[in-house]
Amino acid sequence: MAEGEGTTYHMTPDEFRRWGAEAVEWVARYMEKVEEFPVLSRSAPGDIRRSLPPHPPDRGEPFDAIFRDLDEVIMPGITHWQSPRFFGYFPANVSGPSILGELLSAGLGVQGMLWSTSPACTELETHVLDWLVELFGLPERFLSSGAGGGVIQDSASSAALCALLAARERATEGASNRRGVDRRLTVYTTSQAHSSIEKAVRVAGLGSEALRLVGVDERYSMRPPDLERALEEDVRSGHLPCLVSATVGTTSSNAIDPIAAIGEVCRRHGVWLHVDSAMSGVAAVCPELRFVNDGLEAADSYCVNPHKWMFVNFDCDAFYVADRAALVGALSILPEYLRNTATESGAVIDYRDWQIPLGRRFRALKLWATVRHYGAEGLRHHVRKHVRMAAQLAEQVAADGDFELVAPVPLNLVCFRHRAGDEVNQRILDRLNSSGELFLTHTRLGGALILRMSIGAAATEPRHVEEAWNAIRRVAAEVQRG
Amino acid sequence: MAEGEGTTYHMTPDEFRRWGAEAVEWVARYMEKVEEFPVLSRSAPGDIRRSLPPHPPDRGEPFDAIFRDLDEVIMPGITHWQSPRFFGYFPANVSGPSILGELLSAGLGVQGMLWSTSPACTELETHVLDWLVELFGLPERFLSSGAGGGVIQDSASSAALCALLAARERATEGASNRRGVDRRLTVYTTSQAHSSIEKAVRVAGLGSEALRLVGVDERYSMRPPDLERALEEDVRSGHLPCLVSATVGTTSSNAIDPIAAIGEVCRRHGVWLHVDSAMSGVAAVCPELRFVNDGLEAADSYCVNPHKWMFVNFDCDAFYVADRAALVGALSILPEYLRNTATESGAVIDYRDWQIPLGRRFRALKLWATVRHYGAEGLRHHVRKHVRMAAQLAEQVAADGDFELVAPVPLNLVCFRHRAGDEVNQRILDRLNSSGELFLTHTRLGGALILRMSIGAAATEPRHVEEAWNAIRRVAAEVQRG
Repeated sequence: MAEGEGTTYHMTPDEFRRWGAEAVEWVARYMEKVEEFPVLSRSAPGDIRRSLPPHPPDRGEPFDAIFRDLDEVIMPGITHWQSPRFFGYFPANVSGPSILGELLSAGLGVQGMLWSTSPACTELETHVLDWLVELFGLPERFLSSGAGGGVIQDSASSAALCALLAARERATEGASNRRGVDRRLTVYTTSQAHSSIEKAVRVAGLGSEALRLVGVDERYSMRPPDLERALEEDVRSGHLPCLVSATVGTTSSNAIDPIAAIGEVCRRHGVWLHVDSAMSGVAAVCPELRFVNDGLEAADSYCVNPHKWMFVNFDCDAFYVADRAALVGALSILPEYLRNTATESGAVIDYRDWQIPLGRRFRALKLWATVRHYGAEGLRHHVRKHVRMAAQLAEQVAADGDFELVAPVPLNLVCFRHRAGDEVNQRILDRLNSSGELFLTHTRLGGALILRMSIGAAATEPRHVEEAWNAIRRVAAEVQRG
Repeated sequence: MAEGEGTTYHMTPDEFRRWGAEAVEWVARYMEKVEEFPVLSRSAPGDIRRSLPPHPPDRGEPFDAIFRDLDEVIMPGITHWQSPRFFGYFPANVSGPSILGELLSAGLGVQGMLWSTSPACTELETHVLDWLVELFGLPERFLSSGAGGGVIQDSASSAALCALLAARERATEGASNRRGVDRRLTVYTTSQAHSSIEKAVRVAGLGSEALRLVGVDERYSMRPPDLERALEEDVRSGHLPCLVSATVGTTSSNAIDPIAAIGEVCRRHGVWLHVDSAMSGVAAVCPELRFVNDGLEAADSYCVNPHKWMFVNFDCDAFYVADRAALVGALSILPEYLRNTATESGAVIDYRDWQIPLGRRFRALKLWATVRHYGAEGLRHHVRKHVRMAAQLAEQVAADGDFELVAPVPLNLVCFRHRAGDEVNQRILDRLNSSGELFLTHTRLGGALILRMSIGAAATEPRHVEEAWNAIRRVAAEVQRG
């Protein structure tokens, strides 16, 4: 806020220096004390809104009022995803270099919808996504130097939708975009796939009934013979299979679909194979964990989220296609006001044609800053550490008479339950989460309530996992005593 | 980067303080000198990539290497959207408070997909979007206290897609989500609407052929009788009209569709009315410019972009619906791993059900910080200033014998052309943009090439517009001399 006659109302560069220093200090202090907060917010519905003024301010306010309210009003309503004791969902870890990349991107304020609207925004993105192909050991067909290439999407949900749109157009030779979908199109995944697959199937106009849930084995992985049978039956009955969406590391239990065998089936049927490796794909930064890439050569599209397990703050999903022409064909519309020489030369990428929205910010900066800060070495260090902590916890659970492991632990997610049944597990979960000591989420596997402990926050150390396991056992004993 | 035995590789809080100070200083200096850069980047395709190392680093690098490359490699590839001499497309202006809001959001690193995953993230968003209803004088039916409510989308493109999905489900009573769309569904807009409408129609599976381009008048605004005729013909021939997308402030020429009359037609036919007011809606912060809201009471959904003309950095589109149940009904899928007590109580909003992606960052922080910093007064000051500069430029163009205005100038976009024809206008445009002195974009109206001067950057002062007009006349004279 600036006052007086002749004010511009803008925050001046010097004011920005002052409040910017405060904001950096605020974030640095948050990093230092994030462990001290109760992990799950204790707010009740409406608590935050009740503390906010009902009307927008007519006159500007000094920025320190915002910091004050941030501490007093907002913070009690935060669930601390960056806490070392956050074990819910999948991680969404962040880091200093990524936060600074986001700051610089906001400061530059450029739009990357076309190459020409800021060439560096497009070229850095293409370049760093090519780097990730090397960093993760992904198939070369995803490199931009061939027919494929990568793009940053906001999330794996949007990546799945884009994959489906490209697959839909390929299967119908572009007719869906012109004439609309017909009800012959079908899509294949498992009951363990992320909800974004069903959402994409609905959004794209195919309808949930077009989604086939292929059977899974005892490890919750897709059974390729079941996929083949489903495809054959659908083809026989006049359907037009367009997409198989396989998962490497399901949200429920980190199950890994057998991509190579699924790819064989897709190849025989000419169906687009999308592989969602949103969290687990990051493990490929470690050569010894590259089993997560097994069979990926057969994938038409692939996504992995640096914003989950690679210290890049949301949003940063890396989405790759083997044939970028199929994706662009599905998504490109060129109105006059976006025409420009560079686009018409065909020598550049316009990322607006690789995504649903038109506008896009300079997200490659934070990915670039993070990869450069850590180097492959630093990223490997943390993935290995998280995997090691999960393995150790899994051993402890397996050795405990009261608990049982309920799924393999290929990476950093441990799924387990107390042997006393759903009600006890629910009470353990509720009591742990309301304690503020740690945060876990649940799922259901084989009909039973399962506790999930997902280990991937940047600050999590072995002692946090040990303390969590002690808390789980302590609370289990309390719950059983009634 | 941290070196040595026992390194965590993380940027420590103290290192973050150091590099954070540098990043703030970098942005402050950019604010100070943004005017000095050639507005349009002079990079040729491939220039940026050639300056980047071909492989990702194996070991981490010190953060000052990133600043060095930012200046040396990235900056030459930036088109300066924040330059006071950027007059292309529509503005995407930013501000100090918004940049700091983005920084704080990145530092907190929370996910707002569910209320419970950070109640403050959801409640602040609902609250500030209610504020905007008051700030802009929008219909009360968009308030969350009734049946409606607002949500932040990444862009007006995504808002249009969500509106279409809700409209599609309402028209088919939820059948599209289950059984897939059929080819009876139709959508109505004009040739002047944004390309995102056709993109949404394709994405949602209706196909471009389902899109009816309703006729426009001499001001490029939709003709309601033409809309009514199109609807009647389609109903007669067995189609199922689901959505009319009207525009307040088209991208080409800032044309304003007559919402009240269109709303009447929609009401009679029971068709969902979406109003895209992406840039121009911000004008409503000024009571004297509230003609942009005329007829909005009839809209089922509405969007306006604080990230265009209200100093909030991309992405921040404010999307409103009058009936949130229709939107949630179209987009909600609840897998076990997202179930929680708050959601099941029905007392909270889960914004994942209001958008395509699942994940979402804390974007309300930057909107809140910006509104509080400027207050209604400060925001009005800038909108009025931009509108005044556009009016003055329009007068000068109209008074000039060589140029002509080609469309009304209701707000801050001036569309004009040299009377000497397309080729001269194209040469004027190319020469101006390659000079680096300013940046304009073009469109076509009535078949002719038109120059667009969009006035909305935060730093644009009357002298910049005057200098731009002088440059346009000077270059026109040069071009005509050959």
